[in-house]
Amino acid sequence: MSRLDLAAALARIQPVDAARLASVQGHLDRQAKPQGSLGRLEEFARRFVAITGRQDIRKKIVFTFAGDHGVTAEGVSAFPKEVTPQMVFNFIEGGAAINALARHAGAEVRVVDMGVDYDFPPLEGLLAKKVGYGTRNFAKGPAMSRQDAIRCLEIGIELAQSCLEQGVDLVGTGDMGIGNTTPSAAIVAAFSGLPVAQVTHRGTGISDAALAHKIQVIEAGLQLNAPDPKDPIDVLAKVGGFEIGGIAGLVLGCAALGLPVVVDGFISTAGALIASELHPHVRDYIFAAHQSVEIGHRHMLQRIGQRPMLDLEMRLGEGTGGALAMTLIEGALRSLREVRTFDDAGVSSGNEV
Amino acid sequence: MSRLDLAAALARIQPVDAARLASVQGHLDRQAKPQGSLGRLEEFARRFVAITGRQDIRKKIVFTFAGDHGVTAEGVSAFPKEVTPQMVFNFIEGGAAINALARHAGAEVRVVDMGVDYDFPPLEGLLAKKVGYGTRNFAKGPAMSRQDAIRCLEIGIELAQSCLEQGVDLVGTGDMGIGNTTPSAAIVAAFSGLPVAQVTHRGTGISDAALAHKIQVIEAGLQLNAPDPKDPIDVLAKVGGFEIGGIAGLVLGCAALGLPVVVDGFISTAGALIASELHPHVRDYIFAAHQSVEIGHRHMLQRIGQRPMLDLEMRLGEGTGGALAMTLIEGALRSLREVRTFDDAGVSSGNEV
Repeated sequence: MSRLDLAAALARIQPVDAARLASVQGHLDRQAKPQGSLGRLEEFARRFVAITGRQDIRKKIVFTFAGDHGVTAEGVSAFPKEVTPQMVFNFIEGGAAINALARHAGAEVRVVDMGVDYDFPPLEGLLAKKVGYGTRNFAKGPAMSRQDAIRCLEIGIELAQSCLEQGVDLVGTGDMGIGNTTPSAAIVAAFSGLPVAQVTHRGTGISDAALAHKIQVIEAGLQLNAPDPKDPIDVLAKVGGFEIGGIAGLVLGCAALGLPVVVDGFISTAGALIASELHPHVRDYIFAAHQSVEIGHRHMLQRIGQRPMLDLEMRLGEGTGGALAMTLIEGALRSLREVRTFDDAGVSSGNEV
Repeated sequence: MSRLDLAAALARIQPVDAARLASVQGHLDRQAKPQGSLGRLEEFARRFVAITGRQDIRKKIVFTFAGDHGVTAEGVSAFPKEVTPQMVFNFIEGGAAINALARHAGAEVRVVDMGVDYDFPPLEGLLAKKVGYGTRNFAKGPAMSRQDAIRCLEIGIELAQSCLEQGVDLVGTGDMGIGNTTPSAAIVAAFSGLPVAQVTHRGTGISDAALAHKIQVIEAGLQLNAPDPKDPIDVLAKVGGFEIGGIAGLVLGCAALGLPVVVDGFISTAGALIASELHPHVRDYIFAAHQSVEIGHRHMLQRIGQRPMLDLEMRLGEGTGGALAMTLIEGALRSLREVRTFDDAGVSSGNEV
């Protein structure tokens, strides 16, 4: 397949086939258990099989997209921005939470430098896709140009294509970028029209005073830049981030290429929301990994129309919730493949009572 | 260790050591991530390590306790009672959902015949502990004698002892018994004093009319037998079940012996509730696997004081939710062991902002 640009990717997106969904459910209903009794595991199995045509997962990859944010100059994070490249090195060395949880899930981790303010040497496991040395401060003007926003999306689409070529059957998203709950809150506020205070939270852990300040910074940035909610690329450019754009592109690319994508928490869902606003059927390919502690997250998921698989009060990002959620999809597929039917097991089925 | 009877097991139960809990949390707080950002995974890791003194799981077993129920004569289930022994054969042959999900979790399954109305031949993987050929119909009198209730509890305690001897570090509970949501609802109603209609649901899937009848049967049984909520053994004997008693004993035995126990859904939690009412510190050893669809389940968990790990709308039993929940504990321990500290990873820590 030739390399897909944004327009070509959008043109390929189809709804998931309803007949395939029904066929998988038909088999689940013949298995020796009360109908529907495996609950959402049945949904996970049904959707995975309908999307991929497979009942197993050959290979899983979590992409952790990294980028810096000019808006950190406003003092919106508890951590200094040097932590972004420090954590990239930690990912590459395998010492972070996403590495531990990806190993637990049997997934590989690929770190994508979308725009860290640091010059990395060539490193195995680091994909060098730098669009810039961090975004500009959106409190003072647009975070990036429209051209750079499209570039971010097309990098994500390209990564989805690489997955298809490598036999990856399940893709996960993740993020690293000090300050990135700020653009994420701005994105959901821009699309939903909700008051900024209703979608903005403490990120890595800020005080009440710093939270009030963060809300003011986002309000001012939205007023100054006036992103157009009908134009998701404009929203990404004005108040987004390079890593968020990469995630949006990956999610869009997965939808275009028929790959299920597990979307992690608040920042990943900001990316998924941009993709979902670009095309209404993107949502069919999204598995929402978990409910983040960030208060804006539920509004994103409502807009996308997917329910979280886990609710463990996590708020770390990196792809950690996504890696855990992948294990639930594995379990669901195992049940689909291995549970015998009433007939095969010689078990009497239920009556109308 | 000599074989523990009920009194000896109760005498051994201690609260989990607060200093150990704090020590694990201290390490989690030095790891290179915002403090507390792995949410409940940190709770799972902290509790597992404080209980066991270990950071890994050598061996996991799910015990699926099977028993029949005289109260099925009242027409409270959508499935005929022949399904109980049919499903026991299915478990032994590895074809049921608990087998698939236990394989997914890397756990072994042991089926315990506590009181199925069927004579099984000797079967590998089936533990023959029959207390009777099904309980009596509690709509007409007590389900079992007090002596049999104690026998059920001591069988469960004995199984916990066998786990300790075999190097099992994580135990799961499960159930199979056509009709067993009926005694489970009766148990939570007896302890909580809540109206039967508030804790009684559709089990494997019954109609509105059958549900109304089931509620009447439970109300009548409670009135006739008048179980004493201050005497959990009396509750088990009057309106319980053999498999529920086995589960109660296993949970109690785990608490007595310092083993963490993952408690599955509605029926398993009825057992855990009996154990928890017998001794207030049993709760410290319980991991509540998931929120069942059965409406009485949340009242049981509130009384025990544990929150569910998963909420996937499951209502199958067998231990299926417990097997999935075991994988979350594995993930939590992997993070505890493998995530580097700020110092080791060379990552700057957060500031007060």
